[in-house]
Amino acid sequence: MSDTLRLAVVPGDGIGQEVTPEALKVLDAVLAGSGTSVQTTEYDLGARRWHASGEALPDTVLGELREHDAILLGAVGDPSVPSGVLERQLLLRLRFELDHYVNLRPSTLFPGVAGPLAEPGEIDFVVVREGTEGPYVGNGGALRVGTPAEIATEVSVNTAYGVERVVRDAFRRAAGRPAKKLTLVHKHNVLVHAGHLWRRTVEAVGAEHPDVTVDYLHVDAATIFLVTDPSRFDVIVTDNLFGDILTDLAAAVTGGIGLAASGNVNPDRTAPSMFEPVHGSAPDIAGQQKADPTAAVLSAGMLLDHLGREDLGERIRTAVRTDLSRRAEGAVGGRRTAEVGDALAALV
Amino acid sequence: MSDTLRLAVVPGDGIGQEVTPEALKVLDAVLAGSGTSVQTTEYDLGARRWHASGEALPDTVLGELREHDAILLGAVGDPSVPSGVLERQLLLRLRFELDHYVNLRPSTLFPGVAGPLAEPGEIDFVVVREGTEGPYVGNGGALRVGTPAEIATEVSVNTAYGVERVVRDAFRRAAGRPAKKLTLVHKHNVLVHAGHLWRRTVEAVGAEHPDVTVDYLHVDAATIFLVTDPSRFDVIVTDNLFGDILTDLAAAVTGGIGLAASGNVNPDRTAPSMFEPVHGSAPDIAGQQKADPTAAVLSAGMLLDHLGREDLGERIRTAVRTDLSRRAEGAVGGRRTAEVGDALAALV
Ligand SMILES: CC(C)[C@H](C(=O)O)[C@@H](O)C(=O)O
Ligand SMILES: CC(C)[C@H](C(=O)O)[C@@H](O)C(=O)O
Repeated sequence: MSDTLRLAVVPGDGIGQEVTPEALKVLDAVLAGSGTSVQTTEYDLGARRWHASGEALPDTVLGELREHDAILLGAVGDPSVPSGVLERQLLLRLRFELDHYVNLRPSTLFPGVAGPLAEPGEIDFVVVREGTEGPYVGNGGALRVGTPAEIATEVSVNTAYGVERVVRDAFRRAAGRPAKKLTLVHKHNVLVHAGHLWRRTVEAVGAEHPDVTVDYLHVDAATIFLVTDPSRFDVIVTDNLFGDILTDLAAAVTGGIGLAASGNVNPDRTAPSMFEPVHGSAPDIAGQQKADPTAAVLSAGMLLDHLGREDLGERIRTAVRTDLSRRAEGAVGGRRTAEVGDALAALV
Repeated sequence: MSDTLRLAVVPGDGIGQEVTPEALKVLDAVLAGSGTSVQTTEYDLGARRWHASGEALPDTVLGELREHDAILLGAVGDPSVPSGVLERQLLLRLRFELDHYVNLRPSTLFPGVAGPLAEPGEIDFVVVREGTEGPYVGNGGALRVGTPAEIATEVSVNTAYGVERVVRDAFRRAAGRPAKKLTLVHKHNVLVHAGHLWRRTVEAVGAEHPDVTVDYLHVDAATIFLVTDPSRFDVIVTDNLFGDILTDLAAAVTGGIGLAASGNVNPDRTAPSMFEPVHGSAPDIAGQQKADPTAAVLSAGMLLDHLGREDLGERIRTAVRTDLSRRAEGAVGGRRTAEVGDALAALV
């Protein structure tokens, strides 16, 4: 990481506007005295801009975003905008244009956090979700819309190029972890073409990593184990849609999406990576300072990891751990979004 | 139901061979003295037949199956057969050829059953999973297989014809239940073409059912609620793949796939409906009399419901409830598959 971290900030919609300032607050605090300063440029993207201009992500803005070291994103989506518009034209466009092929989503049950499971055991795994292919490519269409003869298709596109690079990344991560275990999640007994490509790729790349134990689960069975035996997981590698589903469930199991961080990572560094909480814009609680900024703060921690400052990322995670223990003890509670941010900034 | 119930029985693979006789045992017991007798024809379909003949489902057998009032299926799939072969050529072929467009999967947390959730609340919902379209159609393919230029696609096909009929069925079921609530689960912010077809269809059919409350959840959010607030669900209607995923998770939440029953229903009765446990062939425990036949027995109960004998279906469910309470009290336990079947047959 150079002396100045050029950070693009996209608070986005709803609670994105509230949690992002807290992530920045904690980022500033952890960088104080580190020799690195942050230079942020805020981009007003989301529902407001789309209503005002009809554009979700102008090419010029995309070009400017590329000039940054990383992007911090809040949340995208608003009921006033037709479903799919901001998602496809803003969020997914960023992931695809910036080649965020590793959508990295760690799941850790922090001490003191009460999830929904009676006996959760130790949970500490990471999902490597493919980010630029699968059913998310926007391929497909509809014919005779609105008539009884309507047909709508969605095409999942999977390439050896795209699958291999994300599988390689997942194996590297698995090899660097104590348990060294990789689970491929797919549904190759039904989605045979895509499934067999994933399978063969995991087999081939796995041959280069004899130290990593490889496992396979159908996506339906994987959801069962996420609630009956989440400790069994170490690194999960999976496609874009299965990854979307599994990581929301994993977030729930580890205490809720208020704590779930993610990184849209371009491991080749041909474009900036983007860090964002797994949660959405939550219009129902937006503007009320009710949202937990922890997921956004942890996402900022992943940003630091990615830029080579895992020491600082770890300080953020330690602060979160302390704050969550205090919550568990009942020492803190009922705080506003900004108060949680203040507490974490003081702790790092 | 006529005097003689012509039942086709397909035990299939693995534990399917063990649980199916128990379901038949209970069916015989509940029908005794009812004025109806069962006439079963067993069909040897599954891995053994495929190995012997290279065929998973000969057309002649399919023709014979059509002549029955209903089909009772155990489980399909074996590690000795390449993944996807028995699934696509036998199980899915049956569902598609016999037009099982309603894949009905009730989720009930029976008294005394300990699931993985700390505070499950009351769980009693049913998933109406579309059974003849979506990503299960087998549309798609692969190009340049095994080369670095490989591309594999999977096409989800959704038609107004197919979506409307299953949505109508789901509304009818919702209208007949006390809570009268229908939740559409999809991912229309990403899968916009299929998603909007589902959405518009639910809106249109919903207008004919003003008494039914309609709700929508993205599939990722739905998995969260299944573990944090499963009581909120009454009837869920969803596509073939999302339904596959949600029902395994729902089974886990309600005590495991040992208890989860399903019906592949042709509501128009143009072909026999097929009833099967949600679980697979479980090769790891097959042949050891370890499998819980309860899911198969409950599937036989759904079969009776479908044939108009809900009184008898209810007797099966009551027997299961009693047996599960006895398990909870520790009065019974460690029983072999056949012993559980005996106990249930004695109870109905
Ligand atoms: C908002 C939506 C497009 C997005 C996704 O499906 O990827 C979200 O659910 C996520 O997981 O980041
Ligand atoms: C075995 C498999 C093809 C099947 C499915 O995906 O439908 C199973 O998982 C199920 O849920 O009945």
